Amino acid sequence: MVPVTDVELAEYFASRGRRVDDALDRYLPPESVSPSIIHRAMRYAVSAGGKHLRPILLLAGTEVCGGAPDPALPAACAVELIHTYSLIHDDLPAMDDSPTRRGRPTCHVVFGDAIAVLAGDALHALAFSLLLRSSDGVSPARTLAVCQEIAQAIGTAGMVGGQVLDVLAERRPSLLSDAILDPPTELVREIHLRKTAALIRAALRAGALLAGADEILLAALGGYGERVGLAYQIVDDILDVEGDALTLGKQVGRDAAAGKITYPAAYGIDRSRAIAAQLTADAIDIVDALGPRARILKDLARSLLERDR
Amino acid sequence: MVPVTDVELAEYFASRGRRVDDALDRYLPPESVSPSIIHRAMRYAVSAGGKHLRPILLLAGTEVCGGAPDPALPAACAVELIHTYSLIHDDLPAMDDSPTRRGRPTCHVVFGDAIAVLAGDALHALAFSLLLRSSDGVSPARTLAVCQEIAQAIGTAGMVGGQVLDVLAERRPSLLSDAILDPPTELVREIHLRKTAALIRAALRAGALLAGADEILLAALGGYGERVGLAYQIVDDILDVEGDALTLGKQVGRDAAAGKITYPAAYGIDRSRAIAAQLTADAIDIVDALGPRARILKDLARSLLERDR
Repeated sequence: MVPVTDVELAEYFASRGRRVDDALDRYLPPESVSPSIIHRAMRYAVSAGGKHLRPILLLAGTEVCGGAPDPALPAACAVELIHTYSLIHDDLPAMDDSPTRRGRPTCHVVFGDAIAVLAGDALHALAFSLLLRSSDGVSPARTLAVCQEIAQAIGTAGMVGGQVLDVLAERRPSLLSDAILDPPTELVREIHLRKTAALIRAALRAGALLAGADEILLAALGGYGERVGLAYQIVDDILDVEGDALTLGKQVGRDAAAGKITYPAAYGIDRSRAIAAQLTADAIDIVDALGPRARILKDLARSLLERDR
Repeated sequence: MVPVTDVELAEYFASRGRRVDDALDRYLPPESVSPSIIHRAMRYAVSAGGKHLRPILLLAGTEVCGGAPDPALPAACAVELIHTYSLIHDDLPAMDDSPTRRGRPTCHVVFGDAIAVLAGDALHALAFSLLLRSSDGVSPARTLAVCQEIAQAIGTAGMVGGQVLDVLAERRPSLLSDAILDPPTELVREIHLRKTAALIRAALRAGALLAGADEILLAALGGYGERVGLAYQIVDDILDVEGDALTLGKQVGRDAAAGKITYPAAYGIDRSRAIAAQLTADAIDIVDALGPRARILKDLARSLLERDR
């Protein structure tokens, strides 16, 4: 195991990102396997040059808790596949109807809507296949706990529920009456917590579980993940208003044009920035209690706040 | 445990079907939970009056191997949720564009395309949550094996792969060249094996695994499931040509109208019927070796061949 406290953040990100890339290439079925088109579509969406934030946070969670990164690679790749499946489905004409993502045409634009729906479904199933792999030194009971952590985070109480609220807020706000999510500041927080923060929190807790972390560590990493996840989405919202399309690799201003509910829309830019900064400070405080080994998580939180893409 | 060999088939189907219905009602989030619309959509699709074939086969697989049905209910419901998610996505305008299913408007017609995509995704995730539940007397290692059995059956090597081949055969046959699936008789067999038989086979093997079956039993139930699953889909194809719309609860003739590749299209009705009968006979032969305890599986196979809906 690399002593992460001695590694610069950029190096850490690059080296763990490479391991994730290599592992994804091993785990995804080759394009030569029939039916080729679905494997091409899956690989196209996965290799779209994402930051691999979620798998790297999972690996960091494991390493901070004393685990080695390699046994956590299947789980790390699984959360990337889940994130990718959700992006493919979110981008569909039936949902956000996004023509580009990370500077390239979206999956359904290249492969058609039917194959895009199925590529998302296939990545979802493959993610669970990877999560279920027993890793060296990880008991079956612990592997089940890791799978359950992720499964809970991506259902209607988590990621899918957030996407539902997002769709309703944009198109059918009358159906939100059941949700007691007024004012909009409460609603946007709930959407981001479920849609973005739930999986990031689960990734950190999954990493900790794989390393055999106790309840105190699990709670710390979960609390950190929730705050970093929420801050991450707020920064995303801000970049959609103020960011540079070329740097971001996607159109800006799409949220406002679509009438999406965002932090800048609900709070204004300055307060949104202050909230993201406070969440980041809180996240850093939580893991500060873990001592020097948590440095990588603190550096990560800061860099996610200050990013321009 | 009910001694299944003494129970009439119709009674068995009804009693196990009720247990599955009750369990599904417990496992699905209540409609009152926010966001309500997604839970309504999930329940609408699940309660559409399906036969619960897959969960009942899973329970039968467990019982034939000496297990009790109740500890297998979460897994049985999980395969029903997976089947339902696949139907919701198959029915979407981007896929088969089906307006009705089991005599009622399809999920996307009632709730909109976006919510239908998400209801499918949510059922997929919930299915894994259920599969991951540890049941009394089932070790974590065995629970993992059950989950893996299902996960493998629903990815691109199984259910999703079959759906991809189906979509390609209908719309873009030139893309099938990589699949070496000529003549059409080979192609339609491959589609049905993946799209339908893979999950039915996995349900039977999952039931057997939950009961602690050995490799010989597992192989027998898997072989039975594959043949019964293929025969089931061939009978479905035949009913789409010869069946009664009112009895079936769906339009007939849709396969031919859509230019779908089916057994009747590839072989004609008479040979299709003969193939289904032979597969059923083979399935019965395989489990005959297990002695009297396998009677329920033999009766089930016969009744599926002779059904008119």
